[in-house]
Amino acid sequence: MSESIRQVIELNPSLVLKAVQQLEFEDRPVPDLLEPYDVSVRIEYTGICGNDVHYWQRGRIGQFILEKPMVLGHESAGVVEKVGSKVKSLAVGDHVALEPGVPCRRCTFCKAGNYNLCSEMAFAATPPFDGTLAKYYVLPEDFCYKLPTNVSLQEGAVVEPLSVAVHLVRQAALQPGQSVVVFGAGPVGLLCCAVARAFGASKVIVVDVQPKRLEFARAYAATAHFLPGVETSPADNAVRLREENELEMGADVVIEASGAEPSVYTGIHILRPGGTYVQGGMGKEEVKFPITAACTKELNIRGSFRYSSGDYKLAIELIAAGKINVKALITQVFKFEDAPRAFEEVKSGKGIKTLIAGPGV
Amino acid sequence: MSESIRQVIELNPSLVLKAVQQLEFEDRPVPDLLEPYDVSVRIEYTGICGNDVHYWQRGRIGQFILEKPMVLGHESAGVVEKVGSKVKSLAVGDHVALEPGVPCRRCTFCKAGNYNLCSEMAFAATPPFDGTLAKYYVLPEDFCYKLPTNVSLQEGAVVEPLSVAVHLVRQAALQPGQSVVVFGAGPVGLLCCAVARAFGASKVIVVDVQPKRLEFARAYAATAHFLPGVETSPADNAVRLREENELEMGADVVIEASGAEPSVYTGIHILRPGGTYVQGGMGKEEVKFPITAACTKELNIRGSFRYSSGDYKLAIELIAAGKINVKALITQVFKFEDAPRAFEEVKSGKGIKTLIAGPGV
Amino acid sequence: MSESIRQVIELNPSLVLKAVQQLEFEDRPVPDLLEPYDVSVRIEYTGICGNDVHYWQRGRIGQFILEKPMVLGHESAGVVEKVGSKVKSLAVGDHVALEPGVPCRRCTFCKAGNYNLCSEMAFAATPPFDGTLAKYYVLPEDFCYKLPTNVSLQEGAVVEPLSVAVHLVRQAALQPGQSVVVFGAGPVGLLCCAVARAFGASKVIVVDVQPKRLEFARAYAATAHFLPGVETSPADNAVRLREENELEMGADVVIEASGAEPSVYTGIHILRPGGTYVQGGMGKEEVKFPITAACTKELNIRGSFRYSSGDYKLAIELIAAGKINVKALITQVFKFEDAPRAFEEVKSGKGIKTLIAGPGV
Amino acid sequence: MSESIRQVIELNPSLVLKAVQQLEFEDRPVPDLLEPYDVSVRIEYTGICGNDVHYWQRGRIGQFILEKPMVLGHESAGVVEKVGSKVKSLAVGDHVALEPGVPCRRCTFCKAGNYNLCSEMAFAATPPFDGTLAKYYVLPEDFCYKLPTNVSLQEGAVVEPLSVAVHLVRQAALQPGQSVVVFGAGPVGLLCCAVARAFGASKVIVVDVQPKRLEFARAYAATAHFLPGVETSPADNAVRLREENELEMGADVVIEASGAEPSVYTGIHILRPGGTYVQGGMGKEEVKFPITAACTKELNIRGSFRYSSGDYKLAIELIAAGKINVKALITQVFKFEDAPRAFEEVKSGKGIKTLIAGPGV
Repeated sequence: MSESIRQVIELNPSLVLKAVQQLEFEDRPVPDLLEPYDVSVRIEYTGICGNDVHYWQRGRIGQFILEKPMVLGHESAGVVEKVGSKVKSLAVGDHVALEPGVPCRRCTFCKAGNYNLCSEMAFAATPPFDGTLAKYYVLPEDFCYKLPTNVSLQEGAVVEPLSVAVHLVRQAALQPGQSVVVFGAGPVGLLCCAVARAFGASKVIVVDVQPKRLEFARAYAATAHFLPGVETSPADNAVRLREENELEMGADVVIEASGAEPSVYTGIHILRPGGTYVQGGMGKEEVKFPITAACTKELNIRGSFRYSSGDYKLAIELIAAGKINVKALITQVFKFEDAPRAFEEVKSGKGIKTLIAGPGV
Repeated sequence: MSESIRQVIELNPSLVLKAVQQLEFEDRPVPDLLEPYDVSVRIEYTGICGNDVHYWQRGRIGQFILEKPMVLGHESAGVVEKVGSKVKSLAVGDHVALEPGVPCRRCTFCKAGNYNLCSEMAFAATPPFDGTLAKYYVLPEDFCYKLPTNVSLQEGAVVEPLSVAVHLVRQAALQPGQSVVVFGAGPVGLLCCAVARAFGASKVIVVDVQPKRLEFARAYAATAHFLPGVETSPADNAVRLREENELEMGADVVIEASGAEPSVYTGIHILRPGGTYVQGGMGKEEVKFPITAACTKELNIRGSFRYSSGDYKLAIELIAAGKINVKALITQVFKFEDAPRAFEEVKSGKGIKTLIAGPGV
Repeated sequence: MSESIRQVIELNPSLVLKAVQQLEFEDRPVPDLLEPYDVSVRIEYTGICGNDVHYWQRGRIGQFILEKPMVLGHESAGVVEKVGSKVKSLAVGDHVALEPGVPCRRCTFCKAGNYNLCSEMAFAATPPFDGTLAKYYVLPEDFCYKLPTNVSLQEGAVVEPLSVAVHLVRQAALQPGQSVVVFGAGPVGLLCCAVARAFGASKVIVVDVQPKRLEFARAYAATAHFLPGVETSPADNAVRLREENELEMGADVVIEASGAEPSVYTGIHILRPGGTYVQGGMGKEEVKFPITAACTKELNIRGSFRYSSGDYKLAIELIAAGKINVKALITQVFKFEDAPRAFEEVKSGKGIKTLIAGPGV
Repeated sequence: MSESIRQVIELNPSLVLKAVQQLEFEDRPVPDLLEPYDVSVRIEYTGICGNDVHYWQRGRIGQFILEKPMVLGHESAGVVEKVGSKVKSLAVGDHVALEPGVPCRRCTFCKAGNYNLCSEMAFAATPPFDGTLAKYYVLPEDFCYKLPTNVSLQEGAVVEPLSVAVHLVRQAALQPGQSVVVFGAGPVGLLCCAVARAFGASKVIVVDVQPKRLEFARAYAATAHFLPGVETSPADNAVRLREENELEMGADVVIEASGAEPSVYTGIHILRPGGTYVQGGMGKEEVKFPITAACTKELNIRGSFRYSSGDYKLAIELIAAGKINVKALITQVFKFEDAPRAFEEVKSGKGIKTLIAGPGV
């Protein structure tokens, strides 16, 4: 059967966001390999991310606006289906996790090792680029990571959020023996706790406003938890958090993975002089910020955006070595045809990480 | 003549802040050498700092509150008058610049090279510690820096604010060829411009709301200047600043030396992805802060507080090597007995750096 | 009983190296607290270090030469016996590990956070400074580290060599997921393996010429081992080490803790481009060094000397958290009066870490 | 005239190394643009590098061996002749300096910002890749750097060795105010002196065995020079160098740009504790190395290989800003047809930097 005929016959079922709040299945053409280093992957599992839900409900995140139909999904793992003529590191049948953003490789940022800052980044399910909730997805060999035999394809789908967490903790330059406070016990916050432990943190204190999430976080990876008083000020919460956790001079590192405004304030005030704060959560564009404290304590404050050089590789190693358990976060797996229901459940806050199987899986 | 008699006879005329807005001369006892590494310095020149004026007018800065009379002044140079038994690097008659804050030397911060973060720091003219506006001042040998023969004692008095600027630019990890935007054209902002040039910055753009200060800054050390529109938003000012200065992706480094709230906002928005922002100016405790931009651009934001290891040494070298001209900033020199008038002039915003000569100079 | 009488009555039994190969017990005076921050510690356990044996046998290490009798020992833990007037963090009866080198606190190195490079360092059992193999030893509060209740005084005596290993691995800036090759399976090499694991290394390959030591190392902390061929060249050993351990581009980090010349050569050749090599072992002053490989691979090569800021604190935390087992290394404990026999056994290569109890313990 | 006809008619005169010591002119086909981001450059000036002479005389450098005829030359500047369909930053007629090594862009090193370590690097005039001593040369847009109007094409040809020097000094992490000793006063050593000055070094001491080169270096950029005694040991030379230059604790930075074995030894011994040594020169594969000194002083020793992210950009800025004078190094310019004579002169050690004009220039 010739290649061109195969493409006519074999279709690429996809979950398409046609417009705000309008999710539809569509049969799209099977994508071609465009470059000799490309591979085509048959998607087996895809996690749903808060951003997918956000595009579905609102049609935009920051400057990225849905202007034409777009396939959703970017947390995927699958099986190599086809490889380009120059591909050396992968073979048909290999199990891989997909790093879903391909940068230009030529700009200052790409050449300096910060390709996540590339302004020409083509990122799956970020307008105008289609995502991975389809049967086939094509990307370059070096953005496909072969899974060791002891890492399943379901776990492979969680490599994406784990890489976000790895990048966050790396931005913090966390050192063994340090104390860390993680704000937010959603999937990324939980994974930050786990990464911090794997990196040798002595104390990992998780903060969230939902007691049930705190409970899970404690059982999962945190060494302590803190429930901020709803009626107390961020300043008072900071004082209590320090006291309850014997932080004396303050915490070495704060990781903000909630996006909530009071977390920023509290986070700055619980840090020791010379401590490090990393912002990963996204909420309001602007927040009230204790700049004088940041100045006189000579804090290091850094943003963290997606992932970059080496993050995927390390994320997979952490799973393979048994240092991080991502299975514990997978609370439900839906069939491809039930994807809309999966989105509804995630929207309603059920579960931790919900996966959708690939078409036919 | 015995030492005890000498101390009775020889007095130590001092400028004392008795209470808020109450400046008086007082004859205090000549201070003793307390440790074998101490030296006594006869103060020749002292610069007036904004903080001195602030204590005089308000009696407090942050958590530091005037609760008993305190000698003002901490930007001083003088002549070594007496040396302790173990002093090796200095001799009577040496000209020295004084680093006016002595840390505990034993805490985590001191032993890790960040003694400016020491919580037991004894800093001149910061309550409850007396300052240097006196005839004699005692401090340890290693906080006295011998001035090369081509650096005058008047220049020596400007080493303190220059060290503040050196520390700020070091916190920015400024690399040769980078572009820098400095907010604030007061003494520290001006010195930051000069240090940035000396460190090899390609563009040094100074921002201030006073056209006269901008003019001086351009003639002194900046390569370009920017006058923010008063009625335009910080966001619009950011756009115009980038366009006028062909910053394309944005500036590499921002140094905030004004303490003004809109500077923070504008500063974050003119940085390139991965750029560095250093906060040195102190104004409001809390400001409106564009946290999402800081996050997605993965900015590095750092505070800068006073100076630390190596800053004084480098500041003096920069003057001695002719790389930074501090004489140009000394706009007036008052006799010791005219100190109150000097304070009035600084309060009214006259001149750039005002010095007060030591008693009898 | 007055203090002066107590000092006459209570003596300080000490193990003194009178001259090369001449070890004697001596009753020395109980040392006084000299500074208000000093504490006196009753020594409970002291480990024997290769350097102690070296001074005993040869009377010198590098430029340090025994010129008068010297108490040996510097790996000690004990109980606080007396505290100076300004001591706040310790009380009589506290169990502490001793950091046995006190720097000047005033030089460039001390103030920049590298006090181990201080040229005025007073280091126990390094001529001309007496060591800790005595009943009492006085040092400043901030060089005594309180042991958590779950860390015994015997473990406390191993904090010293563990701190050497912590410093070595920190000099390597080891990142989680990296591969490390450790040359030398003596106490420091073994502890480097353990620290590398605790810091998240994925592969820890230990190299030694003694199969029995390799066997122990594998059981203790290494993930793989390598026995260099005695008749094969260092270059051939490098090739085989890479192949056997699937290091492909090469190892990320090499830690040299043997001091053997062939290790240096092999170490450089097994590193990947951009890899890091840390020299901790001391053997010949000069070795044959593959400089062109180091140059074209842009290796980072660093020395590591003793320990510095934060190393003791982290070493204790690693033991307390159960991440590093130092008990497994303590192969024998001698009574104080049997110290000479302990030295003989260490000289003959028996055991891994031999401790000597304090007088009366 | 169709493109295919133009290529037949227009030829690409090239200087080809046919075999060891066999230099010939050849008319080669005009190279095609292969990728949409490629540009074709008409070469105007090319500097001769020691490596070009080495391949000519010996046919190999390290593992790179001439196995088929190869065009020489890699230090070039020229005029853009043709641009690919996606080229945005360059236009026909632009003056550009060529960065002559194109990496794979996909490997770990490329994606981590160290593309100079890429094992698939295609580097001009390094077997088997042809060099730039031809009329036309094709390379990707992002490896062509537009020259500012105040930088001539002859200066543009010196950007390559200047980038080598920029990379060397960056590897040293040189800080303003530091002291630097540069071994070797050839083109790269001279440029290192100039870069060190531009980066704010306070002392730049150049070392060479040829008094005439030292003299030039002093006039050009060094602040002091040192002529090693031929009959004195490297150790004695180290002592004298420190004394003559008042280096007290030792130099902050050593840059080795000679490749001579005694320089390595002397270099290590003149460094202060914690100092940095960078190896750039290539001579013997292995040298006698003072490893114990490197260990106990905790030196940082790094290799430097070619250039990487940002080096070319900064090199051009340094010339454009007038901070580095490369014209002073251009001692002779030969016509293309006189290239063999140019090579003979460089071989004989005449001049500093010899350029060859492009065909027809």
